[in-house]
Amino acid sequence: MVVVMSPDATPEQIDAVVARVRTTGGEAFVSRGVQRTIIGLVGDVDDFRALNLRGMPGVADVIAVSTPYKLVSVDHQPGRSTVVVGTGTGARPVMIGPDTFTLIAGPCAVESLEQTLEAAEMAKAAGATMLRGGAFKPRAAPRDFQGLGKVGLHILAEVREVTGLPVVTEVIDPADVDLVSGYADMLQVGARNMQNTALLQAVGRARKPVLLKRGIQATVEEWLMAAEYVAQRGNLDIVLCERGIRTFETATATTLDIAAIPVVQRLSHLPVIVDPSHSAGRRDLVLPLSRAAIAVGADGILVDVHPDPEAALCDGPQALAGADVRELASTLRRLVPASGRVLGEPFPAVM
Amino acid sequence: MVVVMSPDATPEQIDAVVARVRTTGGEAFVSRGVQRTIIGLVGDVDDFRALNLRGMPGVADVIAVSTPYKLVSVDHQPGRSTVVVGTGTGARPVMIGPDTFTLIAGPCAVESLEQTLEAAEMAKAAGATMLRGGAFKPRAAPRDFQGLGKVGLHILAEVREVTGLPVVTEVIDPADVDLVSGYADMLQVGARNMQNTALLQAVGRARKPVLLKRGIQATVEEWLMAAEYVAQRGNLDIVLCERGIRTFETATATTLDIAAIPVVQRLSHLPVIVDPSHSAGRRDLVLPLSRAAIAVGADGILVDVHPDPEAALCDGPQALAGADVRELASTLRRLVPASGRVLGEPFPAVM
Amino acid sequence: MVVVMSPDATPEQIDAVVARVRTTGGEAFVSRGVQRTIIGLVGDVDDFRALNLRGMPGVADVIAVSTPYKLVSVDHQPGRSTVVVGTGTGARPVMIGPDTFTLIAGPCAVESLEQTLEAAEMAKAAGATMLRGGAFKPRAAPRDFQGLGKVGLHILAEVREVTGLPVVTEVIDPADVDLVSGYADMLQVGARNMQNTALLQAVGRARKPVLLKRGIQATVEEWLMAAEYVAQRGNLDIVLCERGIRTFETATATTLDIAAIPVVQRLSHLPVIVDPSHSAGRRDLVLPLSRAAIAVGADGILVDVHPDPEAALCDGPQALAGADVRELASTLRRLVPASGRVLGEPFPAVM
Amino acid sequence: MVVVMSPDATPEQIDAVVARVRTTGGEAFVSRGVQRTIIGLVGDVDDFRALNLRGMPGVADVIAVSTPYKLVSVDHQPGRSTVVVGTGTGARPVMIGPDTFTLIAGPCAVESLEQTLEAAEMAKAAGATMLRGGAFKPRAAPRDFQGLGKVGLHILAEVREVTGLPVVTEVIDPADVDLVSGYADMLQVGARNMQNTALLQAVGRARKPVLLKRGIQATVEEWLMAAEYVAQRGNLDIVLCERGIRTFETATATTLDIAAIPVVQRLSHLPVIVDPSHSAGRRDLVLPLSRAAIAVGADGILVDVHPDPEAALCDGPQALAGADVRELASTLRRLVPASGRVLGEPFPAVM
Repeated sequence: MVVVMSPDATPEQIDAVVARVRTTGGEAFVSRGVQRTIIGLVGDVDDFRALNLRGMPGVADVIAVSTPYKLVSVDHQPGRSTVVVGTGTGARPVMIGPDTFTLIAGPCAVESLEQTLEAAEMAKAAGATMLRGGAFKPRAAPRDFQGLGKVGLHILAEVREVTGLPVVTEVIDPADVDLVSGYADMLQVGARNMQNTALLQAVGRARKPVLLKRGIQATVEEWLMAAEYVAQRGNLDIVLCERGIRTFETATATTLDIAAIPVVQRLSHLPVIVDPSHSAGRRDLVLPLSRAAIAVGADGILVDVHPDPEAALCDGPQALAGADVRELASTLRRLVPASGRVLGEPFPAVM
Repeated sequence: MVVVMSPDATPEQIDAVVARVRTTGGEAFVSRGVQRTIIGLVGDVDDFRALNLRGMPGVADVIAVSTPYKLVSVDHQPGRSTVVVGTGTGARPVMIGPDTFTLIAGPCAVESLEQTLEAAEMAKAAGATMLRGGAFKPRAAPRDFQGLGKVGLHILAEVREVTGLPVVTEVIDPADVDLVSGYADMLQVGARNMQNTALLQAVGRARKPVLLKRGIQATVEEWLMAAEYVAQRGNLDIVLCERGIRTFETATATTLDIAAIPVVQRLSHLPVIVDPSHSAGRRDLVLPLSRAAIAVGADGILVDVHPDPEAALCDGPQALAGADVRELASTLRRLVPASGRVLGEPFPAVM
Repeated sequence: MVVVMSPDATPEQIDAVVARVRTTGGEAFVSRGVQRTIIGLVGDVDDFRALNLRGMPGVADVIAVSTPYKLVSVDHQPGRSTVVVGTGTGARPVMIGPDTFTLIAGPCAVESLEQTLEAAEMAKAAGATMLRGGAFKPRAAPRDFQGLGKVGLHILAEVREVTGLPVVTEVIDPADVDLVSGYADMLQVGARNMQNTALLQAVGRARKPVLLKRGIQATVEEWLMAAEYVAQRGNLDIVLCERGIRTFETATATTLDIAAIPVVQRLSHLPVIVDPSHSAGRRDLVLPLSRAAIAVGADGILVDVHPDPEAALCDGPQALAGADVRELASTLRRLVPASGRVLGEPFPAVM
Repeated sequence: MVVVMSPDATPEQIDAVVARVRTTGGEAFVSRGVQRTIIGLVGDVDDFRALNLRGMPGVADVIAVSTPYKLVSVDHQPGRSTVVVGTGTGARPVMIGPDTFTLIAGPCAVESLEQTLEAAEMAKAAGATMLRGGAFKPRAAPRDFQGLGKVGLHILAEVREVTGLPVVTEVIDPADVDLVSGYADMLQVGARNMQNTALLQAVGRARKPVLLKRGIQATVEEWLMAAEYVAQRGNLDIVLCERGIRTFETATATTLDIAAIPVVQRLSHLPVIVDPSHSAGRRDLVLPLSRAAIAVGADGILVDVHPDPEAALCDGPQALAGADVRELASTLRRLVPASGRVLGEPFPAVM
């Protein structure tokens, strides 16, 4: 950390900062400039954060030069992690990580067994090795369809049995984590709940991998801090998912921050995938954004498909169907190998 | 609602939209333009939302011309509401509404009985009629101080007994709503949880007034939709709190959207207050922003005070102390009457 | 400045940074941490900027701890400046600064002598001591009305002669600065041109005060750097104008950054005013935002008025007329004295 | 256009809107809803814009359902345009359009003949068929290097003679357009000047192709309106360049809006390229973002290269050199054909 003193800070105020830093066992190096004095801190950053240095008289700014997360950082684990999804439920396990490119596809919301099964078959045809589908839906508008709840979880499990696809589904209440863990292969924390610390801690205690979407207002650093909340409870099977951030641009639902993929990969060992469907909110952009995700180096994509998008109860305008799914399949088969990865092969050990 | 067809929409596609609208009992008026056809819908908006018109072939856009919230809108209740806080707990009840200007003050986090009591006395001296204080703290960084929890609630109740100030405190887990309701006079939903629908529904079922902070990523419309979630469960005692939105500007923690106050007042009957402490994150801006809040027409402010900001475990750099509190007091006494309001008088009927 | 080395920086790389800093005559203090080394620089910041330290091997970040502007900063001139507008043109000069509150009002665009004269009389009735009006209009849409040009300048000068109000008008092409200076009392640089360096330099060479609007994308720091461009050419008669920044909120045209007023006042000695009309783009918010501007401590406001807003060729929906102007007048008379200022008195020396 | 009346609009106000629309020869279709009446307009949108309908009593909103640009829209010219750059100056002409992928590379700023020549050779080695280089630099900080001006133009022309690469360089003052046109093959309008209408009109009158960067605050619609300003003066040889928009994320200089590429391609026939160097401001992201640009379907990229980035006078931290340039070359050779395009072949007719 670096403490920047204000131009009119007194020598006593500078000494007070140094003294407080030393109470932690840390060291403080003072550089007296013409206009300002700056103090470089050496020691445990967590200790320094607790010192409340920014509140001391004469302090103009405190600048963090190290990251506020540890377990999920590349400093903690230098390589790239692989997360295995789908063990113990009869599904064919899937590896999400640096060697594969994983397509996770399915309906935004589970509406019926028939619709979900049909969507899952579409997903498989496109090359998907995992099924997505929402049973609990956190909607902005209170009168919109909120999901089938437990019935939806049942349907997802049935479809897994038929198709062999591991299932990822969202959980929105900490009290439901056990319930959802009983059905799902992976727990999704949605963008609206990325800073819901009670939920992060609950999925951190669960024995299932977690798909952590980036909040539309969250910096990459805050996203990694949210992942750290999960990791701190003992669960390091976390896959990050970039799904667009909120900007002034209105042509798309949110602005896909494609640069966040390589940025995350320089800061964290966790796998990171892209959601081209929700980021744009427009069906016609799902394919171009999927291509960009592959080329930029993402570990997978999460795509909405629906047998009848016109009749979808949730986010129909962005779901792929028919010819679009076939084009997605051919795009993946062409571009994924060109990017040096294997398209979503099931986990070899169990084949 | 207005459905905008794409320039190349066929007559059959236009007819299909009209037919689908009519299935709800609504009416559709078609305006055929040179480039495009638009269709005006008349009927129940909630029915129309469920039709998924945006997903139909030939539809370019669907534009909502009415609001996606009802109970909290001025159409539902034309005047301005007053929310009474502090009945049944031995506190002196407070009215938050159009006639008064309410100062709610206290420490960001409850650290000890002594600190909270001292902060409460500072708050009273500045003109506060309500006490704020966090027992459960949702922090972005997982290693930061997370609050005293239940012990903090006890402290708040004790300080209420001594000072007579009703207490508002944050709740972050739906499972804690009953616990917190047993101590607090008002439940705060923080900015990070504004779209935590499980929590919104839980406080909606509680028998306590709710302070609903705006998410830093939320439009005014989304904020009112969040309030509608609370209202739908039967709780209309909601006070909105503007606390800044996330923008590119880094001189302040967030950008206080001062225009949101009159914008909300034209859309909703709910009281709306301002948090100058968290929006700026800088002590030196709390007073100017408090003056702006009074002048713009807010129903109150929520201010961090701390007996020893340097030692604060949370957000010390923004807490007022000493001379600043005295200046706040004199500012309120001067500006509130000049704005045609009464400064935070306790509820007259119960005195 | 502080140079933050990456965790894997070598001793040679650290030495290289130190050596390069010393080439400028500056000094570098090295703090070796557990994870990282940081280097505090002492010397001339402009020299350091030219060193391109960020591009050196092993350098992770370079953090500026002093401001990239000088002439406009409080370090250069500690008090608050007053800018006098309207000398030498027969107008009654006006002081914009810490003691007064100046209302500048008029039509967004000059459309005719009659319309401008009528708007000027409305402005005066509301307490205005300066007239605004656009002859050259930089419009986003190429087919919108672009202003009367030179004819508009003539009209403004005529209206000044009749009313005695000094005139501020926008200049959008460096080649027009001399022309506009021949008519106007103050040159406006609009938000779209805040980083048009050719224009900034041209108005910096002019002998007229400058009204510099903040770009909707500009940080406060960039705004002050734009002012520095003007000041560097010898013109320090600059008044800053906050007019809203672009955010995701769509209820208003832009988001008025009310906190920017006190933020600027802590960084710069220049006067700063608010444009409530263009920031919101809604007539019904002009009065509340004007009140907020007075209370927060701005040195004035810039308000659109129009005798017939319905017929306005530019921004009619935000212009005040009739009863709104009378309410603005009474608001100013009530709130400005309560804020410890004098409402826009003409320059005493010439009365 | 659609006019949305407020819930309390009177029949007379509705009639007044209809009557005003009819004065233009347009037609107005009225849909009376339960809560609101909406009016669909059919006729010339430019005429409607001039009516100032938003300012009429009873009007709540006016919604544009057609685009405010024409010449650059797909409605005006359905296919995709190709812009030829480099005729008449002795360079080898280049086609920018749907069949090719064009690499434009060079130093951010021209510093010397030697540096520019060396950078141009690096550019060619990487597959570039065009040279970029700044002679006039619009810098945010007034004391930063502002470019060599006319000397820089001379150097660029010399390097073109040696290498055969057509040259694109920025112009920042309308008065310089003729001068720069005398040297350059393509005129760049930078992000800071995207709404500098005087400059847009000046390059619109020039006989050189224009590279129009998106402003960091500009919506796609505003960007296309800026292109329309150029096109209206008779110059339709415009290439758009996405270079990132300003958001709250600080890990990158700006946020590359990768979705803007397909969004633009659905709205406009103009070619569109990506600037991965300035959008991220980080060398380590240039390659991943270049890959994303190819895959998403851009018509080219604009990349900073420098023989000695450490010594660069401008934006050194983002310039590629040495091994990075070689990796860019191999990436282009691998990915461009996989995306169905030809890598930047010189214009066949002149070979």
